[in-house]
Amino acid sequence: MNYKLSVIAKELGVEFNGKDIDIEGIESIDKASSSHLSFFTDKKYIDTLGYTKAGAVLIQEEFASLLPSSTIALITPEPYLALAYASKLFAHKISAQTYPPNIGKDCDIASDVKFGSNVTIKDGVTILSGCYIGDNVTIEENTLIHANVSIYHGTKIGKDCIIHSGTVLGSDGYGFAHTKLGEHIKIYQNGNVVIENRVEIGANCTIDRGAISDTYIREGTKLDNLIHIAHNCDIGSYTLCAAQVGIAGSTKLGRNVVMGGQSGAAGHIQIGDFVTIAANSGVTKSLPSGNKTYAGFPAMDIKLWKKMHAVLMRIVKKR
Amino acid sequence: MNYKLSVIAKELGVEFNGKDIDIEGIESIDKASSSHLSFFTDKKYIDTLGYTKAGAVLIQEEFASLLPSSTIALITPEPYLALAYASKLFAHKISAQTYPPNIGKDCDIASDVKFGSNVTIKDGVTILSGCYIGDNVTIEENTLIHANVSIYHGTKIGKDCIIHSGTVLGSDGYGFAHTKLGEHIKIYQNGNVVIENRVEIGANCTIDRGAISDTYIREGTKLDNLIHIAHNCDIGSYTLCAAQVGIAGSTKLGRNVVMGGQSGAAGHIQIGDFVTIAANSGVTKSLPSGNKTYAGFPAMDIKLWKKMHAVLMRIVKKR
Amino acid sequence: MNYKLSVIAKELGVEFNGKDIDIEGIESIDKASSSHLSFFTDKKYIDTLGYTKAGAVLIQEEFASLLPSSTIALITPEPYLALAYASKLFAHKISAQTYPPNIGKDCDIASDVKFGSNVTIKDGVTILSGCYIGDNVTIEENTLIHANVSIYHGTKIGKDCIIHSGTVLGSDGYGFAHTKLGEHIKIYQNGNVVIENRVEIGANCTIDRGAISDTYIREGTKLDNLIHIAHNCDIGSYTLCAAQVGIAGSTKLGRNVVMGGQSGAAGHIQIGDFVTIAANSGVTKSLPSGNKTYAGFPAMDIKLWKKMHAVLMRIVKKR
Repeated sequence: MNYKLSVIAKELGVEFNGKDIDIEGIESIDKASSSHLSFFTDKKYIDTLGYTKAGAVLIQEEFASLLPSSTIALITPEPYLALAYASKLFAHKISAQTYPPNIGKDCDIASDVKFGSNVTIKDGVTILSGCYIGDNVTIEENTLIHANVSIYHGTKIGKDCIIHSGTVLGSDGYGFAHTKLGEHIKIYQNGNVVIENRVEIGANCTIDRGAISDTYIREGTKLDNLIHIAHNCDIGSYTLCAAQVGIAGSTKLGRNVVMGGQSGAAGHIQIGDFVTIAANSGVTKSLPSGNKTYAGFPAMDIKLWKKMHAVLMRIVKKR
Repeated sequence: MNYKLSVIAKELGVEFNGKDIDIEGIESIDKASSSHLSFFTDKKYIDTLGYTKAGAVLIQEEFASLLPSSTIALITPEPYLALAYASKLFAHKISAQTYPPNIGKDCDIASDVKFGSNVTIKDGVTILSGCYIGDNVTIEENTLIHANVSIYHGTKIGKDCIIHSGTVLGSDGYGFAHTKLGEHIKIYQNGNVVIENRVEIGANCTIDRGAISDTYIREGTKLDNLIHIAHNCDIGSYTLCAAQVGIAGSTKLGRNVVMGGQSGAAGHIQIGDFVTIAANSGVTKSLPSGNKTYAGFPAMDIKLWKKMHAVLMRIVKKR
Repeated sequence: MNYKLSVIAKELGVEFNGKDIDIEGIESIDKASSSHLSFFTDKKYIDTLGYTKAGAVLIQEEFASLLPSSTIALITPEPYLALAYASKLFAHKISAQTYPPNIGKDCDIASDVKFGSNVTIKDGVTILSGCYIGDNVTIEENTLIHANVSIYHGTKIGKDCIIHSGTVLGSDGYGFAHTKLGEHIKIYQNGNVVIENRVEIGANCTIDRGAISDTYIREGTKLDNLIHIAHNCDIGSYTLCAAQVGIAGSTKLGRNVVMGGQSGAAGHIQIGDFVTIAANSGVTKSLPSGNKTYAGFPAMDIKLWKKMHAVLMRIVKKR
C-alpha cells in the first residue's frame, strides 16, 4: 500500500515543495526512513527533528526549518489531526471474506473456525470452535486456542501458547486526534500484536494492536482473565498479571513483574524487573527494577502505604 | 404483545375494580399513557401520582386514593415484586431461530453471521465472522462489526460505527425485585440499546439494554475495551471512556466527558459536559458541567485530592 | 485416566519405595484416598500429614517420616513444581472435534452451536448462535444460553439459569508453580464449574474451573457483567455481584452477600452471610456474617470509612 506523497498531501489538503516521493507507511521521527511519512506533535522531541531520516514530516510552519534538507515538510497547523487522516490511508482493509489457511501437520482445528487471507498455522496447533483468525496471522507450533477467540489481522502468536475463550488479540488501540469542535478522529492502528512463546492468556482479555509499531507480550508471561493491555505496551517475559489488570498505552513492564488483581498502570511508564504491584493499586510513575512491592493509588512502597493506613486509623479512632 | 388488564391481574394474583382495558406495555408514572401499566414504588415521586395518565398502576393500598379516577389501581403490598412478575409478560420471546436479514447494497457480511427475525442492514455495512444479530436489530450505513460480536434483539446502531470483537450490545440490565425470603425476581429488561452515529466501541465491552426505556450511546462517542455501561445510561456525545470504566444504571454523562481507565460512576447521577474523571476514581454524586477534573473515591476536585495526598504523606513521614 | 505410580514417578524424575499402585487423580492431603496422589507444600497443614489416606504424596525428604506407613512418599525438593508436572498427566485432553449432544424435549438450539463429546441438554433449554459447549457438560431444564457463550468441558449448569453473551464458564484457573529461574509451570486445572439452579450470569463474565475440586455458583445467585470468579471460589446462594467485581481464588461468599460494582475480594477468605461490600472496595480479610456494610481498601465498617474520609477532609481543609 504505497502512495505518492502528492496523493497523501491532496488527501490532507496540504501543499509541499519537493520531489513526489513514494511513501510506504507512517513512522515516528526517530525510526522513519526516506520512504516514511512522519509527524512532529510533541515539542519534547524537538532535538530529534534535525536528525530525522523521514521522507516527509507533518509539521507546524514554525518548526519546519529545523528539518534536514533531505526531508520534505508537509506544513499543517494541526499535525496530529493530519496524522489521523493519513493513518486511514495506510490502514489494513478489513474484509469479511474467508479463505483456507496454510495448515501444518497434526493440527486439530474445529470445522467452523474461519480464517482471513494468508494465515499460517504451524504443526500441532489446536483451535476450538467459533474462533476467527484474521488476515496474515501466524500461529506457531503446539499452541492451543480455546473457543470463540477473535484474532485480528497481522497478529503473531508463538509456540506452546494457550489462549482462553473470548479473548481478543489485535483490536484497535484507543487513539484519536481531536478537532477544535471536540470531535474525535480515529488514528488507524497500523501496528500489530506479537505474542511470544509459552504465553498463556486468560478468558475475555483484550490485547490491542499498536498504533504504529507493535504491542508485545514476551516469552513465558501468564495473564489471568479480563485483562486489558493497551496499544504499544511491552509486557516483559515471565510476568504475571492477575485478573482485571489494566495497562495503559506504551507502558513497558520488565521481566518477572507481578501485577495484583484489579491493579493498573498509567501510560508511557516503565515498571522494572521483579517489581510486585499489590492488588487494587495504580502505578502512575515509572518504578525501578528490584524485588520490591508497591501498593495504593498512586502506588508507593507497600511499607509506606501500610504505615499511612495505620496512622490514618489512629487519627480517626482518636476523634 | 397486548394483554387484557384482567389477564395481568390474574397472573399477579391481584384484584381490581374498573374496565378491563388493553395494556400494551409497562411505563413509569410520568410517561405512561392510558394503554400502559405503571407502578408506584418510590415515595419520592408521590406528587406525580395525581397527574399520571397510566391506564393502571401497581400500588400499595394506602396510596391508591391519590390516583386520578381515570387510572385503575392494582393494589398489592409489594408493587416492585408485582412489577417484576408483570415485566415477564411483556418480555421479548428469545428464540434460537435464524432468518435471512434485509441487506442493503455493497455490504460485506461473513457467511456464518446469524440473524434473528426482521433484521435490517443498510448499505456498506461490514460484519465479520461469528457475529450474532438478534431480532429487530437495525444497523445503519457503513458500520463495521468485528468478529464474534453479540447484538441482542431491538438494538439500533447508527452510521459509521465500529464495534470491536467480543462486545455485547443489549444484554439484560441488572434488575431484580427481592422477596422477603431474600430471593431475587428478575425484572425483564424490555428497553433497548441505541448507538448513534460515528460511535466506536472497543473489545469485550457490555452495553446493557434498558429496563423500560432505552440505553443511549450518543454521537461520536468512543469507548475503549472492557467497559460496562448499565441499563438506562445515557452516554453523551463525543465522550471518551478509557478501558475498564464502569457506569452504573440510569447515569447520564454529558458531552465531551472523559472517564479515565478503571474509573466508575454510581447509578442515577449526572456528570456534566466537559468534565474529566481521573483514572481509578469513583464518582458518587452528580457533577456540574465545566472543564474540570475530579479524582479519588469519592471523586473530588483533583486539586483537593492532590492536596489530601500531600498532607497525608507529610503526616505519615513525620511519625 | 489412571496411571501406575511408577509411570508418574518416572515422569517426575523421582524414585519411591513401595507397591506400584494405581493412581486415578490428584487430591489434597485431607481429601485423598488410597488411589490418589497428594502433595505437601504448606507447613501450616503439617498436622494433617499423619492422618492422610493418600496412596502417595509428593513431599520433601525431611517431612516424609510423618506420613502413615500406608502412604508412599514421592520425595522431591520442590513438591509444588512436581505437582504442576503431575497435574498435566491428569488433564482433560482438549479436542476440537464436535459431536451431536443428547438433547431433551422442547429445546431450541441454534443450528451452529457446537458440542464436545457426551454433552447432555435437558428439556426446554434454549441455546443461541455461536455457543460452544465442551465435553461432558450438562445443562438442566429450561436454562437459556445467549449467543457466543463458551462453556468448557465438565461444567454443570442447573435449571432455569440465564447465561448472557460472551461469558466463559470453566476456563483454566490461574495456577502456576515457579522454577528457581522464574519460569511459571502450569498447574493443570482439573476441577470443574458447577452453576446451581436459577443463577443468572451477565455478559462477558469469566468463571474459572477449580484446580482440583470445583468452583461453585450457588442457587439463585445473580452476577452482573464483566465479573471474574477465580478457581475454587464458592459463591453462596442469592448473592448479588454488580459489574466488574473480581473474586480471587478459593474465596467463599455466604448467602445474600452483596458486592458493589468494581469491588474485589482477596483469595482464601470468607465473606459471611448478608454482608454488603460497597462499590470500589477491596476485602482483604474474612468478614463475619451479619447485615453490615463494609467499604474502602482494605475494607472496613462503612461507618469507620466515612468517618475516616470526613476527618481527612477536615485536616486537609485546615491547611
